[in-house]
Amino acid sequence: MFSVTVRDHIMVAHSFTGEVFGPAQRLHGATFVVDAGFAGESLDADGIVVDIGLAAEQLRAVLADLTYRNLDDEPAFAGRNTTTEVLAREIADRLVARIEAGALGEGARDLGRVTVTLHESHIAWASYERAL
Amino acid sequence: MFSVTVRDHIMVAHSFTGEVFGPAQRLHGATFVVDAGFAGESLDADGIVVDIGLAAEQLRAVLADLTYRNLDDEPAFAGRNTTTEVLAREIADRLVARIEAGALGEGARDLGRVTVTLHESHIAWASYERAL
Amino acid sequence: MFSVTVRDHIMVAHSFTGEVFGPAQRLHGATFVVDAGFAGESLDADGIVVDIGLAAEQLRAVLADLTYRNLDDEPAFAGRNTTTEVLAREIADRLVARIEAGALGEGARDLGRVTVTLHESHIAWASYERAL
Amino acid sequence: MFSVTVRDHIMVAHSFTGEVFGPAQRLHGATFVVDAGFAGESLDADGIVVDIGLAAEQLRAVLADLTYRNLDDEPAFAGRNTTTEVLAREIADRLVARIEAGALGEGARDLGRVTVTLHESHIAWASYERAL
Amino acid sequence: MFSVTVRDHIMVAHSFTGEVFGPAQRLHGATFVVDAGFAGESLDADGIVVDIGLAAEQLRAVLADLTYRNLDDEPAFAGRNTTTEVLAREIADRLVARIEAGALGEGARDLGRVTVTLHESHIAWASYERAL
Amino acid sequence: MFSVTVRDHIMVAHSFTGEVFGPAQRLHGATFVVDAGFAGESLDADGIVVDIGLAAEQLRAVLADLTYRNLDDEPAFAGRNTTTEVLAREIADRLVARIEAGALGEGARDLGRVTVTLHESHIAWASYERAL
Repeated sequence: MFSVTVRDHIMVAHSFTGEVFGPAQRLHGATFVVDAGFAGESLDADGIVVDIGLAAEQLRAVLADLTYRNLDDEPAFAGRNTTTEVLAREIADRLVARIEAGALGEGARDLGRVTVTLHESHIAWASYERAL
Repeated sequence: MFSVTVRDHIMVAHSFTGEVFGPAQRLHGATFVVDAGFAGESLDADGIVVDIGLAAEQLRAVLADLTYRNLDDEPAFAGRNTTTEVLAREIADRLVARIEAGALGEGARDLGRVTVTLHESHIAWASYERAL
Repeated sequence: MFSVTVRDHIMVAHSFTGEVFGPAQRLHGATFVVDAGFAGESLDADGIVVDIGLAAEQLRAVLADLTYRNLDDEPAFAGRNTTTEVLAREIADRLVARIEAGALGEGARDLGRVTVTLHESHIAWASYERAL
Repeated sequence: MFSVTVRDHIMVAHSFTGEVFGPAQRLHGATFVVDAGFAGESLDADGIVVDIGLAAEQLRAVLADLTYRNLDDEPAFAGRNTTTEVLAREIADRLVARIEAGALGEGARDLGRVTVTLHESHIAWASYERAL
Repeated sequence: MFSVTVRDHIMVAHSFTGEVFGPAQRLHGATFVVDAGFAGESLDADGIVVDIGLAAEQLRAVLADLTYRNLDDEPAFAGRNTTTEVLAREIADRLVARIEAGALGEGARDLGRVTVTLHESHIAWASYERAL
Repeated sequence: MFSVTVRDHIMVAHSFTGEVFGPAQRLHGATFVVDAGFAGESLDADGIVVDIGLAAEQLRAVLADLTYRNLDDEPAFAGRNTTTEVLAREIADRLVARIEAGALGEGARDLGRVTVTLHESHIAWASYERAL
């Protein structure tokens, strides 16, 4: 199994609903350093699992719709907590939708798995991994 | 699959028995930066795989019984080498015992996997991964 | 010259006023990983430049007044942009006030310099350094 | 499952063939920080999954044949792009050949999996994972 | 004193002349993770020491003239070893030239110091610091 | 001003005397990731501030006398706490003695400053900086 991972980041405001979140129920914010990994069983004729330039570009496009925003105001997340886990899944799903639409090239449709990790600080991170 | 990971650390003395360890047979020590990961298939109603505050608290409690000690003197490790692998398993097992006792909340009993990684330096680390 | 540095973090929302900030004029947020360094010319009888436990505790206390908040609503920053630079200075100044009040012990009054670095992402950080 | 990982690096020149590589078709270079992970189901009598000293030594030996070279001139890679993925697989395969030849000790023949990750920058890395 | 630092990278081939360089006399390569720091005594009315967006943009522009190249073929370095130290100075000097030409805005002309650090691996880096 | 820094590490046991150290009065241990920086005003004819290979070799030699030991038993530290600050100074002083003895080459005698940083965990480090 091969995988290629690219890193980017978003800077967002949000608040959480639920006593479990303690002070994070208040409006606060986070830098999420985002690692998007693309895994497949084989390499193409060029010797790559995915075009890393396209991968970085598509990740940037997905993140552009999220960064420098108050996620509490985003219709896409209405009625949901934008926890690190939820954001990891959302970013993974949006990347998969782009892959399926051909944005990473024809070969990328054969990828087996996408993994998105969001680092919320130097001491905490969350991941979501899904098949294509 | 979702996972949440929290980081903490311990600072311990120990020595190893066995020629394979070379100079590490002498009494020496290590800072182990400890990453404890909790993985599950689904999110709860709050949008989390585990209460990250409780996870950090329980990891800290487990590490409090190990840190600032000479592990050669700890009855729990009598007759065993406290290698990075052995410590990773011990910490994982203790976390699982706490999860099963409800310390991470009712939902955490449904977690599928715990992974503990101990970084012993900038160039070496070891992990232990187990099912619940 | 000796120095000791401890790391902690805050997670805040804020927005900026001024065209120079582009999309960061919108309400967004950041995790700031905060490094607070304490420098002095000599060590005390214990062999330390500052009590690292107290230093971490005082940094935590200073950050507790900032984290999990929307800085736009904080009277302390009214009418000012809470840029990374401004926050670094504010945290440094608050640490110095605590040092001068004796919160880091009598010896700490002889420290020569405090440096605070805020990492806003994996690709950008800002520092403020001041004498005591 | 246990795993032990050691880190080392190589500094190489190379160029790529194929329009997908854009400016990387020109002769350029990279530092690859190489993480080699060795995984197994059980620990031996010493409490280790692999002799970490031998693991580091064998990784160093494998990398010694690659570093400070122009990979375009290496017969081993003639006619192939030395992408991060290709290099990760090559290093993993060479490590497995050494394990099978006994270079990591008799016990290492029972290892289940080798994973090699090459970090090409602070924002991109690739991995190859294979069974023994 | 305030400073703001931004990070980017280049991937280059080169070789060195001189017995001191050992195997690095052969054509090889490196990823240099580049940190460019801009320091000044005061903040402007917006609360910044430099426009971080412009700083990142200008660093990217300077690095675009170096990356994905064999530095042995670059006229700018003819007859000189492109050591990490030499490259750090070159990048700092080019940034200062841009600052003096106004590329970082009028306020940036008052910056006091530019520091450029090039990380050539996880275990070695070099810096060059100069006044404006 | 130029500087070159190399990284290595030691793994030691020790205990501290003094109530200020709390639980660290017990025998415990640490991995210290050690950064040794060598600074000078100018580059030599090869374009370097110091031979980085020699620098790494000399740092390794200095650390070989400290690692895999219980520092409480080392005559060099008898009656002294081996705090992070004390160890940073000791390592810097030993490096300077080697430089003055010519171990880093004739040119290294013109270095202006040596800085040694010891990282004791992901959240704490200490430095000592001295002139030659």
